[in-house]
Amino acid sequence: MNIVAAQSGGPTAAINASLLGVYREARENKQIERIFGARNGIEGFLQEKLVELNGLFDTEEQAQLLRQTPSTVLGSCRYKLPPVCPDEKTYVRIFDLLDKYQIGAFFYIGGNDSMDTIDKLAQYGSMIGSPIRFIGIPKTIDNDLMHTDHTPGFGSAAKYVATTVQEIIRDSSVYALNSVTIIEIMGRNAGWLTASVCVLRKNGEVAPHLVYLPEKPFRVSDFIRDVKEVQKQHKAVIVAVSEGILLDFEDHADDGRHQVLDGFGHVGQLAGAGKALERVVRRELGCKVRAIELNVMQRCSSHLASMTDLREAETIGREGIKAALSGVTGVMMSIKRLADEPYQIEIVQTRLHGVAGLEKHFPEEWITAEGNQIRDEAIPYFSPLIQGDLYVLKKNGIPMQYSL
Amino acid sequence: MNIVAAQSGGPTAAINASLLGVYREARENKQIERIFGARNGIEGFLQEKLVELNGLFDTEEQAQLLRQTPSTVLGSCRYKLPPVCPDEKTYVRIFDLLDKYQIGAFFYIGGNDSMDTIDKLAQYGSMIGSPIRFIGIPKTIDNDLMHTDHTPGFGSAAKYVATTVQEIIRDSSVYALNSVTIIEIMGRNAGWLTASVCVLRKNGEVAPHLVYLPEKPFRVSDFIRDVKEVQKQHKAVIVAVSEGILLDFEDHADDGRHQVLDGFGHVGQLAGAGKALERVVRRELGCKVRAIELNVMQRCSSHLASMTDLREAETIGREGIKAALSGVTGVMMSIKRLADEPYQIEIVQTRLHGVAGLEKHFPEEWITAEGNQIRDEAIPYFSPLIQGDLYVLKKNGIPMQYSL
Repeated sequence: MNIVAAQSGGPTAAINASLLGVYREARENKQIERIFGARNGIEGFLQEKLVELNGLFDTEEQAQLLRQTPSTVLGSCRYKLPPVCPDEKTYVRIFDLLDKYQIGAFFYIGGNDSMDTIDKLAQYGSMIGSPIRFIGIPKTIDNDLMHTDHTPGFGSAAKYVATTVQEIIRDSSVYALNSVTIIEIMGRNAGWLTASVCVLRKNGEVAPHLVYLPEKPFRVSDFIRDVKEVQKQHKAVIVAVSEGILLDFEDHADDGRHQVLDGFGHVGQLAGAGKALERVVRRELGCKVRAIELNVMQRCSSHLASMTDLREAETIGREGIKAALSGVTGVMMSIKRLADEPYQIEIVQTRLHGVAGLEKHFPEEWITAEGNQIRDEAIPYFSPLIQGDLYVLKKNGIPMQYSL
Repeated sequence: MNIVAAQSGGPTAAINASLLGVYREARENKQIERIFGARNGIEGFLQEKLVELNGLFDTEEQAQLLRQTPSTVLGSCRYKLPPVCPDEKTYVRIFDLLDKYQIGAFFYIGGNDSMDTIDKLAQYGSMIGSPIRFIGIPKTIDNDLMHTDHTPGFGSAAKYVATTVQEIIRDSSVYALNSVTIIEIMGRNAGWLTASVCVLRKNGEVAPHLVYLPEKPFRVSDFIRDVKEVQKQHKAVIVAVSEGILLDFEDHADDGRHQVLDGFGHVGQLAGAGKALERVVRRELGCKVRAIELNVMQRCSSHLASMTDLREAETIGREGIKAALSGVTGVMMSIKRLADEPYQIEIVQTRLHGVAGLEKHFPEEWITAEGNQIRDEAIPYFSPLIQGDLYVLKKNGIPMQYSL
């Protein structure tokens, strides 16, 4: 049989490692003949944008190039599959194409919305009695998928955030005057990535002094009070804030944010929380203030990838192939943690139905009562995920990258 | 005799390497007894904030920790020395303190404004017949100092910019739709750092497709025309733009930028050019658009430091000590390039008088006639400066950093 793999949703540093896992396990298996990649996810598949991958990643150097290339080499999409009723024709088209290319298994590497897509395909497949297997391979820097300890891509993003925030702390602390530095970190409804800055405490950092997540209501007046409190001890106040915090301005009116709905009805392009707070601090405290967005760098910095993350991403891809060959369909491959120290995991299968459309939030009990800091109890969760460095092949002083 | 070193101006990834060079050469020299560091530059020196450094950086591990720590371990300032007439009392205070601590040589590691400070001190010293030597050690990611081929700190910033922009290119090119990504890079009046993205061409990158520097007038209508032209060939248009470009909006009115004067009368907190252009693109072209500021990360990312840069920064510190011991004063240590390939430099001395207050701009002849791209002729200038990687000591998956 042949197989097809596709990538969907926002880029991460580990999504190509999962593709590599799917590819390598498939190549080692005699049952699988042709390995197709669909460009631009299910949207590209519908347009028959297929490319045969066989032979592309067989040598160690080819594999390493794919592994160290961030984002998605196959391209991505943000395409929402319509409901089967009344729009069956999209599904008929997809299954016609699957037949045409003699696809026995479909692997979709993506986040929450992608799991919704693969879930719908698996359900339709069951409905029409198709033998094709549909397997979800998770990835998201948001770490907000249910029924998995964490998601591939998250560890590398967290390693970038820890490394970069530490450098920003050094940068922000050089002058002998009061200053506030606000670092805005990705996370729409879940504060996992922002919370991960707590790992810096293991290395003796006191900053960031304040951490705000979307899981807690954010009151501007409380924020100003918190900053004033920290200023009693630290000239340079460092604040980490999720992009997704919902600012309750009360009387602190601000007009600086715009929100756009994306294709899934989510609020998109949230960036702006940091800048809004920068204006608040300038107005209320009058001190030097700077907002910094870690922007797309936090999801695509392969040069700072976590080796633990990349290894797991590759393994979870391999396990996806094994699951499909064992006849399983409609599952997401997921990570079960067995121990924090020494860190140990195993790859298990989760019914897609329990994953798609749900979001896993950062645990309330790991946030302080004041809602402005992460408890030490969270550190053993995050720390293993950022261990190990990728050895990066370079050319002319710059990382080499693969382009399909 | 004793010596004192201080750091001033904006952080870089190489400024501590220069301090290490001063320290090591001083420790290897019997004539020098105590090595003082002044916290927060000349401002801290005036407040007698001195710390004795002897013994702190003698082992290879101590040295490595200092080398891999970004920003300034001694702290910094943006303090402008008043003119000798009519304000001599500040100078009297400084020279009293120099006497009190039996300082024979003063080393100031900084940029343009810091060279102004050390120049004034050297002049005053000559005027009063002081035997104390004043040596300027250059650093700035802006690369805008006159009479030096380039400045320590620039190579590491350029290596960060090249690596990160390449990753952003991957991130920005995943969707099958028109998009414009605008990357805002530091550079107030000089476009060196923005222009350095041209090194990516050596690795086969076509993007960034458009590059705008402050050396050329920037017309919004031309920018829109340029983007439309690139869109004919590339769905994902990548633009690199200096923070210092002066937007001529003509009829494209925009109110999004605010400018603040810093202590030297410079326009400060320029950040905002990218965001302003983002609004223009959204309004005029209506496609997906994102502005990304590389912000302070481009000047403090030691984890991506250029080894060539760090070695030169350390050497230039060492040569500063040698110059002082030979009796020289009132000079900046500077870099003379002997060859691009194989790359070769030597450290020479430049009279401070020809440096302070002047700015070196990016050469006109390395910008295309259209003013929107860098010519290939600039690549051999930039490329050697980003070669070599720092081996970074880590703990718990995060770089170790030194704190005084």
